[in-house]
Amino acid sequence: MTTEQEVREVAGRSRAAAAELAPLSRAEKDAALHEMADALVAASSDVLSANSLDLAAGRAAGLADGMLDRLALSPERIEGMAQGLRDVAGLPDPIGAVVRGYTLPNGLEVRQIRVPLGVVGIIYEARPNVTVDAAGLCLKSGNTALLRGSASAYHSNTALVGVLSEAAAKAGLPADAVQLVPGTDRESVTHLMRARGLVDVIIPRGGAGLIKNVVENSIVPVIETGVGNCHVYVDAAADLEMAAAIVMNSKVQRPSVCNSAETLLVHSAVAASFLPTVSSLLHEAGVTLHVDSFDLVPEGPLTVAAADVDWETEYNSLDLAVKVVDSVDEAVAHIRRWGSGHTEAIVSSDVRAIRRFSSRLDSAAVMVNASTRFTDGGEFGFGAEIGISTQKLHARGPMGLPEMTSTTYLVTGDGHVR
Amino acid sequence: MTTEQEVREVAGRSRAAAAELAPLSRAEKDAALHEMADALVAASSDVLSANSLDLAAGRAAGLADGMLDRLALSPERIEGMAQGLRDVAGLPDPIGAVVRGYTLPNGLEVRQIRVPLGVVGIIYEARPNVTVDAAGLCLKSGNTALLRGSASAYHSNTALVGVLSEAAAKAGLPADAVQLVPGTDRESVTHLMRARGLVDVIIPRGGAGLIKNVVENSIVPVIETGVGNCHVYVDAAADLEMAAAIVMNSKVQRPSVCNSAETLLVHSAVAASFLPTVSSLLHEAGVTLHVDSFDLVPEGPLTVAAADVDWETEYNSLDLAVKVVDSVDEAVAHIRRWGSGHTEAIVSSDVRAIRRFSSRLDSAAVMVNASTRFTDGGEFGFGAEIGISTQKLHARGPMGLPEMTSTTYLVTGDGHVR
Repeated sequence: MTTEQEVREVAGRSRAAAAELAPLSRAEKDAALHEMADALVAASSDVLSANSLDLAAGRAAGLADGMLDRLALSPERIEGMAQGLRDVAGLPDPIGAVVRGYTLPNGLEVRQIRVPLGVVGIIYEARPNVTVDAAGLCLKSGNTALLRGSASAYHSNTALVGVLSEAAAKAGLPADAVQLVPGTDRESVTHLMRARGLVDVIIPRGGAGLIKNVVENSIVPVIETGVGNCHVYVDAAADLEMAAAIVMNSKVQRPSVCNSAETLLVHSAVAASFLPTVSSLLHEAGVTLHVDSFDLVPEGPLTVAAADVDWETEYNSLDLAVKVVDSVDEAVAHIRRWGSGHTEAIVSSDVRAIRRFSSRLDSAAVMVNASTRFTDGGEFGFGAEIGISTQKLHARGPMGLPEMTSTTYLVTGDGHVR
Repeated sequence: MTTEQEVREVAGRSRAAAAELAPLSRAEKDAALHEMADALVAASSDVLSANSLDLAAGRAAGLADGMLDRLALSPERIEGMAQGLRDVAGLPDPIGAVVRGYTLPNGLEVRQIRVPLGVVGIIYEARPNVTVDAAGLCLKSGNTALLRGSASAYHSNTALVGVLSEAAAKAGLPADAVQLVPGTDRESVTHLMRARGLVDVIIPRGGAGLIKNVVENSIVPVIETGVGNCHVYVDAAADLEMAAAIVMNSKVQRPSVCNSAETLLVHSAVAASFLPTVSSLLHEAGVTLHVDSFDLVPEGPLTVAAADVDWETEYNSLDLAVKVVDSVDEAVAHIRRWGSGHTEAIVSSDVRAIRRFSSRLDSAAVMVNASTRFTDGGEFGFGAEIGISTQKLHARGPMGLPEMTSTTYLVTGDGHVR
């Protein structure tokens, strides 16, 4: 059983390393990222051996094929991770940016400057590529990464962190810039969540159960990510061809991710002309419709009755809840009641409907005449993304490098006193 | 005993009111603030009667004179609170500000826009003026205020919230824009801290015990405020007259507040010329010095030996810990080990020393040749302040109206799909 002392000892080393990382220049950090990328490729066979241990254990434990695929590394996937590190090196350094700056009437110069958060704890599930991805983003933003991957990827993660840590040291950075939390048991996570004062923030990445556990039990501040019960609302004034394209894209293009749509709301004024057509298209794509009324939807095995649970479910599959509403306000009320605050789209040509919809919701992103699938750090041009925040404090929506920073006020005077 | 159901019912009403406040214009909010100010003045005698009940109960319970003074209202103090509301009405509205905005290569227009947090819970101690102050700042930033003052101010707070809520309704806002959390027992606080999903953030304002309780037990996100163990470091290259003025101002001008200095660090190269003089000045002002060495400090009843506890204590009184260090790095290491991350000042003419000091600390504010007392929303020109955050997420340092907001992405396309 992992002890609190073991976790605090490692977290303390992350904290000491954070003090060394904070003042580094962009050039120093980028050189380390390239060193890490090269080291990963050079260590491919060692990493693959470690990964094969995890895969064998996973097969023995009866892991599903999908899980095994997410766990599996290959020379190509390792090259992909290395390229990810090089890409991060190419991004601007968020540290040192002046967020606000002005001179007060008394001559004091006030500068609000981006600084690292410090120690970033990340708790995540199977994919070992998150290990490299998170380490790179933390390093670039001047933070140390304290990683707690899943037990099923333990050998892979240990090998990866060993390579990254050694490469960091070779580039003149502290080896503790990237560390694994000791242990694979539940206590290991618990002690990390209690390490307030040593760890500055925890970002959970994974399923709803993982995130709920961290949010409810961590006394270290948490950034909640990833649950997405997204809606598309087709307004009375919608271009119905555009609406069909947006609904299809939002639901079908990649149903397993958080920015795919889970509920379609259709204004009653266009329901008769829109629902039969779009339902057929969705059925053709294999989507099961969970409907509040069978009136306008083709019958068949892919049409079922919706219950309340459908309005709140993030299917992450080829399922879509469908409801007819009588107004923008009813759509807003439905979304506020059942949504997760991730992304909602409106299809409409009516500026007043658009303004009402967008100003009355309480979500991280509102898409106007665009697919929900655009809520993404890559699509937003951030170059990298640590996750999509669905909470309101600190960062909301896709989180890039600036969202992995804090700020400090640097105030310069000439003997100023009050 | 206050039940969870009672607190959740009231929080639910705050949440419903938040949906109505969010889309309001600045004019509507400012009109309500003026209505509240006028109503407060008009209701002076009722508020003072309620306050006299709290004062009588406080005297009967043996409250110290200082506490009773903080609890006491007067026509002048009520007028002051009303003026505070009018001042907040005069500040710019943070809501709707475009934080970032750009057009992507595919033509999608991305706008990151300030929106309210939603329901702001504030847990605070004796002063009833916080009730009005917090309600005004919340309303201006489009948030509903859910207030949990101390039991000792219960009658005063009930009267104040009654007046504010009625005035809000008169101005056409929801009456639930300002509410008190039901109950004065411990359970009332506990249920508030568990109301995740209904309450968006809790800001504790008060002593270290209150803040620790909230930070460790709340599953609603918390913004930690107020603990300040601030340092002044007098460098080898300091102008010693300036240094003496800054030390005196940082310690003596208002020792009870969080941005006053608690520890003086002096470089050994100037200790012999600086310490005897500044010590005499501090002694004359009644400051007790807790010293790591008696060598350079005048003897007497105001000079005592420092122990480790002195390095970590926020005295909030005429006490100052004093230590001689041999380098900027030693000063930084001392502050990182013992400080609270609030404000640290350096007095130096050496740009390299200043750069090293400011880039290696981990505090909300660094003052260069200026008093620690300048870390303050009013001094920074914010016009109002809800507190000084000493945490790194969301807001750090003095928190004005923009720090009481979240953001949302409004993304506009023309049928864009991926």
